[in-house]
Amino acid sequence: MLRDIRITRGYQQWPAGSVLVEFGNTRVLCAASVTEGVPRWRAGSGLGWVTAEYAMLPSATHSRSDRESVKGRIGGRTHEISRLIGRSLRACIDLAALGENTIVIDCDVIQADGGTRTAAVTGGYVALADAITWLGAAGRLADPKPLACAVSAVSVGVVDGRVRLDLPYEEDSRAEVDMNVVATDAGTLIEVQGTGEGATFARSTLDKMLDFALAGCAELNRLQAEALAKPYPGVLPEPKPKKSRS
Amino acid sequence: MLRDIRITRGYQQWPAGSVLVEFGNTRVLCAASVTEGVPRWRAGSGLGWVTAEYAMLPSATHSRSDRESVKGRIGGRTHEISRLIGRSLRACIDLAALGENTIVIDCDVIQADGGTRTAAVTGGYVALADAITWLGAAGRLADPKPLACAVSAVSVGVVDGRVRLDLPYEEDSRAEVDMNVVATDAGTLIEVQGTGEGATFARSTLDKMLDFALAGCAELNRLQAEALAKPYPGVLPEPKPKKSRS
Amino acid sequence: MLRDIRITRGYQQWPAGSVLVEFGNTRVLCAASVTEGVPRWRAGSGLGWVTAEYAMLPSATHSRSDRESVKGRIGGRTHEISRLIGRSLRACIDLAALGENTIVIDCDVIQADGGTRTAAVTGGYVALADAITWLGAAGRLADPKPLACAVSAVSVGVVDGRVRLDLPYEEDSRAEVDMNVVATDAGTLIEVQGTGEGATFARSTLDKMLDFALAGCAELNRLQAEALAKPYPGVLPEPKPKKSRS
Amino acid sequence: MLRDIRITRGYQQWPAGSVLVEFGNTRVLCAASVTEGVPRWRAGSGLGWVTAEYAMLPSATHSRSDRESVKGRIGGRTHEISRLIGRSLRACIDLAALGENTIVIDCDVIQADGGTRTAAVTGGYVALADAITWLGAAGRLADPKPLACAVSAVSVGVVDGRVRLDLPYEEDSRAEVDMNVVATDAGTLIEVQGTGEGATFARSTLDKMLDFALAGCAELNRLQAEALAKPYPGVLPEPKPKKSRS
Amino acid sequence: MLRDIRITRGYQQWPAGSVLVEFGNTRVLCAASVTEGVPRWRAGSGLGWVTAEYAMLPSATHSRSDRESVKGRIGGRTHEISRLIGRSLRACIDLAALGENTIVIDCDVIQADGGTRTAAVTGGYVALADAITWLGAAGRLADPKPLACAVSAVSVGVVDGRVRLDLPYEEDSRAEVDMNVVATDAGTLIEVQGTGEGATFARSTLDKMLDFALAGCAELNRLQAEALAKPYPGVLPEPKPKKSRS
Amino acid sequence: MLRDIRITRGYQQWPAGSVLVEFGNTRVLCAASVTEGVPRWRAGSGLGWVTAEYAMLPSATHSRSDRESVKGRIGGRTHEISRLIGRSLRACIDLAALGENTIVIDCDVIQADGGTRTAAVTGGYVALADAITWLGAAGRLADPKPLACAVSAVSVGVVDGRVRLDLPYEEDSRAEVDMNVVATDAGTLIEVQGTGEGATFARSTLDKMLDFALAGCAELNRLQAEALAKPYPGVLPEPKPKKSRS
Repeated sequence: MLRDIRITRGYQQWPAGSVLVEFGNTRVLCAASVTEGVPRWRAGSGLGWVTAEYAMLPSATHSRSDRESVKGRIGGRTHEISRLIGRSLRACIDLAALGENTIVIDCDVIQADGGTRTAAVTGGYVALADAITWLGAAGRLADPKPLACAVSAVSVGVVDGRVRLDLPYEEDSRAEVDMNVVATDAGTLIEVQGTGEGATFARSTLDKMLDFALAGCAELNRLQAEALAKPYPGVLPEPKPKKSRS
Repeated sequence: MLRDIRITRGYQQWPAGSVLVEFGNTRVLCAASVTEGVPRWRAGSGLGWVTAEYAMLPSATHSRSDRESVKGRIGGRTHEISRLIGRSLRACIDLAALGENTIVIDCDVIQADGGTRTAAVTGGYVALADAITWLGAAGRLADPKPLACAVSAVSVGVVDGRVRLDLPYEEDSRAEVDMNVVATDAGTLIEVQGTGEGATFARSTLDKMLDFALAGCAELNRLQAEALAKPYPGVLPEPKPKKSRS
Repeated sequence: MLRDIRITRGYQQWPAGSVLVEFGNTRVLCAASVTEGVPRWRAGSGLGWVTAEYAMLPSATHSRSDRESVKGRIGGRTHEISRLIGRSLRACIDLAALGENTIVIDCDVIQADGGTRTAAVTGGYVALADAITWLGAAGRLADPKPLACAVSAVSVGVVDGRVRLDLPYEEDSRAEVDMNVVATDAGTLIEVQGTGEGATFARSTLDKMLDFALAGCAELNRLQAEALAKPYPGVLPEPKPKKSRS
Repeated sequence: MLRDIRITRGYQQWPAGSVLVEFGNTRVLCAASVTEGVPRWRAGSGLGWVTAEYAMLPSATHSRSDRESVKGRIGGRTHEISRLIGRSLRACIDLAALGENTIVIDCDVIQADGGTRTAAVTGGYVALADAITWLGAAGRLADPKPLACAVSAVSVGVVDGRVRLDLPYEEDSRAEVDMNVVATDAGTLIEVQGTGEGATFARSTLDKMLDFALAGCAELNRLQAEALAKPYPGVLPEPKPKKSRS
Repeated sequence: MLRDIRITRGYQQWPAGSVLVEFGNTRVLCAASVTEGVPRWRAGSGLGWVTAEYAMLPSATHSRSDRESVKGRIGGRTHEISRLIGRSLRACIDLAALGENTIVIDCDVIQADGGTRTAAVTGGYVALADAITWLGAAGRLADPKPLACAVSAVSVGVVDGRVRLDLPYEEDSRAEVDMNVVATDAGTLIEVQGTGEGATFARSTLDKMLDFALAGCAELNRLQAEALAKPYPGVLPEPKPKKSRS
Repeated sequence: MLRDIRITRGYQQWPAGSVLVEFGNTRVLCAASVTEGVPRWRAGSGLGWVTAEYAMLPSATHSRSDRESVKGRIGGRTHEISRLIGRSLRACIDLAALGENTIVIDCDVIQADGGTRTAAVTGGYVALADAITWLGAAGRLADPKPLACAVSAVSVGVVDGRVRLDLPYEEDSRAEVDMNVVATDAGTLIEVQGTGEGATFARSTLDKMLDFALAGCAELNRLQAEALAKPYPGVLPEPKPKKSRS
């Protein structure tokens, strides 16, 4: 029921984790960059920090979209999705175990065809896992296993009165109800965002959409695990006490 | 189970609708301003437009917060809430019946104690209803009944392992799960946003939270109807063909 | 000769001083928030700091005005009024007696009908006085009496050739000369700003306007004293050596 | 009592009016650029428009000041002074006689030593007069005499308890009271802005300061007239019906 | 002497031209988006317009770089490179033959290892050629052959006293002289930018660097021609009179 | 072959170096302001810093140009020229000998008639030399001779098929090729920027333009030396160990 999913690790050479994730024709590059230290407001707490930034290449969409750097401000949609990705990935990590390190997950959409935010969460988790492996090899984790669970996300909608999973843009744009679900590999929920688009929906519809979404997330978790079963796609650092890489 | 709710219509003299809504100590001023015409991108479509802007007075929060006008940019949270309010209120209105008029719902938080966005949706609906009455009296609606249903919203959370409705700030800030639900007086859903805050949650918890939220929304719909049963709190315009008021 | 004046203390629960001031239909919310410490450029001087920020709700004016946060910049008029309020209130306070505390006076116009800046100065003084009481109770003043005098302000104009005090918007917008006067309860002047609006004016007109304005300020000082004669509208802190509240 | 005043017309080659004005060591370049047409909000009214922009070169002040273009925003002081200059110069001109032309007066401070805003008004008037001459020669005025009076401005302050005219920076920075007066060559007032700097002042002080300021403005008017008695410092256009120059 | 060069057409599905160009480890995605019409300032001229925007993914560099959209402004380096690319590509195109169409070349650096701007010009030309093919098939060109020549670019530098072509980052960062050359397949020059980095250089060095650069550009022209010899990598439009695609 | 060149030192009183440079009708004010210390990113390195900011007065151009401070952002052209000036002047100075001092070169164009950037480099060097003299007198240089060479710049172009030096605006705007060359008094090159404007050019043309430019720079070096042969145009500081001036 999902579109064709591909997860390619080691897409870029510099970041500690770099994953190209594809949900059908949607392609998102998820890079996890590591820096020593944490933002000033949490320095000295012993806790690490994970945050995310989402953006769209101008050429990723059917009609070219203007650059937010040129407009001089980030739009509401971008803010909203960046916050969703960061929140979702923080739900699976023990920030004390991470130690005072910051991981920024950059999710840049190369090609958009619906579901970019759910692809970003799903690929972002794999990039995060690689960054954790990198930090572990470098001996910089406060505790060896900071990841408590795996995280994936999928969209689900009602199109022409029928519930559909992982909608491409053509269906998404005419969906009556649109929902994004972030879930763990333990089957629990992290985030549920359902919206009637110019329509309202019954609670029974919500229930059915959740069934579809949880099944989709389980399949995505399986594909993430498969991808992560392969060795780290690059050169791991020597376990020196303190070294920075981004 | 809701906090003490108060809805005061006619709070300001200039806007066509102006409502002070209070959920316990949370106080939000919701003003509906009417202008003739629509944004350029939908001019000539025959459809009207409803949008919302949410903001917080610096003095509304326990610790003073900086002004977004001084910072020179609107934060992600503000964007996100403004979009939620606009989307929720558009779900109840027939934009063709509205005719080519724009209604801006300004939701300014006078005092914040949890649930400001749900108070804003709930009060915003009442302000919108007054603006519709004003437009009807002025003879400017394309169709006499553009409002298809009433809209209210409430927050629900899990605090200390128990589901709680309409959380004040003190409880909200330590909730394990936090959910906002927007619903209609027909019992259907417009928006469901549930988030685990540094925790994940079971689907059964989601179900229980929805029970609480829908009961809360039904009670809010009753209070909205009660408030709107009183006459329009101001002077209605004469039915001239085309006149602008904001 | 003044419009109907009302001063309501304790309008909000969080700030140390919170005053709703009304000059006829003009309503301004003046909140005084206290924070420990001073801006970096005067740290270590032993002096405190008082500053003000003025803003208008979009729904406060006859035609809805755009938000400065959305425009991404603060306009010249806003800057000018914020500076006037801050300068006026600093004239009555001994900043050494205040100690290294900062008081921000937020003046948010809820409803505009002429004279918003003079209402803001007048109400801002009362909010400032409450914040000083709060700081005194907390034992955080360097010296017990930092306020040297009371400050009030009023507008005066020439309309249809006659001098008029405290103009509502309808008169203000067609005044030939427009003047704002800030004065103390000792009858001395803090600020005089008189402008010919597309007209020039004789020095004798200036003299007559000053007569009116000083009489108005004296009456405003009487109403401020009356309002401040009532007890502090909230719970005062225990005299602990150093505690922050905003 | 004024410092040494110099008014040099024709300082730049492109603008219709370009005046270097010096008040002692203060040097301000005032350029009046003409464009056909008016801002959109007054198009079709038959009225012209005059506006001003004030700025300071970074190297003009004792300690280098940062560029507002680099900071990305214009400060409150800049806004305030630009508005004052524009308002002052509009008071002397009949905008209907100007016809639908716009004149922008750019006042760029080359060297600052107190009184930059009053020098800008005084020099700005001379640049404006040259631009009017230019427009008249081009046959583009709706009416031949749009200037109703001459405008000059001067600062006056109380330093060490004594009233002083046209203060250099060293005195201005320690003045107890600071006032700027804009007046016409008919002896009437356009703008009076008096401020106690951390002090209040008696009405009798205000009176004495006005005496000084009006005497100073009269002398400045004499020097303006002297400067303008010389021929136009450039090549006047042929009276073609419509031509643009800036 | 060039690094390993790869040119992949048809990298994205939406833009009329989309090319991934690789100079060694440097990877730049060049997308050419077509829109009908031209910017307002040249509307009605009959001429088309070609412009370019260059940007760097945050994860493209060795240490993560901040997003310009988050900073709210575009840096000087970005501006400079965008202008260079646009100028270089406009040199090879007859804008009258293009007709009133706009082509935006987006050059987004996926991975940076020196020479990103020269890779962007080289790949941008291929994307532009594909966009021209697309416009030709759609029957929207004013004239069938708007491209007068092919354009490529390469960097050349002096490292350890020796002239080197197409420098990777490691060499570029310690080059004494750094030059970028844009040339045509006719062997003529479009742009020469040579800079001593904390050093000056003799004219004979400049001559030698030009020899290397022109040889490099000739080889790049050969590879461009080879890539463009293959058929258009997508579906060409039917020759309808006027249709927009981006 | 150069236009009439004038170099006036001591144009402003506050900066350590202040030079008005004129290339024909082009007039640029170059001010060198000194501050103790260096930007944070190079503090503690023992090296000084030299940077430049270029700007245009709105009234400097034939048609008035908008202020970048009002637009809220600095344009690409401004950035590019500021960077060129800074880079050129840093090529001639030993930053270790400068010690931890910062010199900002502000180049403000008073009147523009072609070649403003080359005038700015040429005048900026003289202002820099005066600032070095000032620092030397104050005893604040780490080493007595930080300037290794003199720097000048000139434009050269091809107009109507003929190579021309130091183009005024009228010629520059219709040049087929445009080049700026920065050179030292030792005859070596610092920067070469040649651009075909909608045309390409042969390598032999480049060679001929370089001949002209180097001859022009030699003449400019002679005029700089002549200007600097006169005594420092102001009061030099006493050799106190550490004092700041800007």
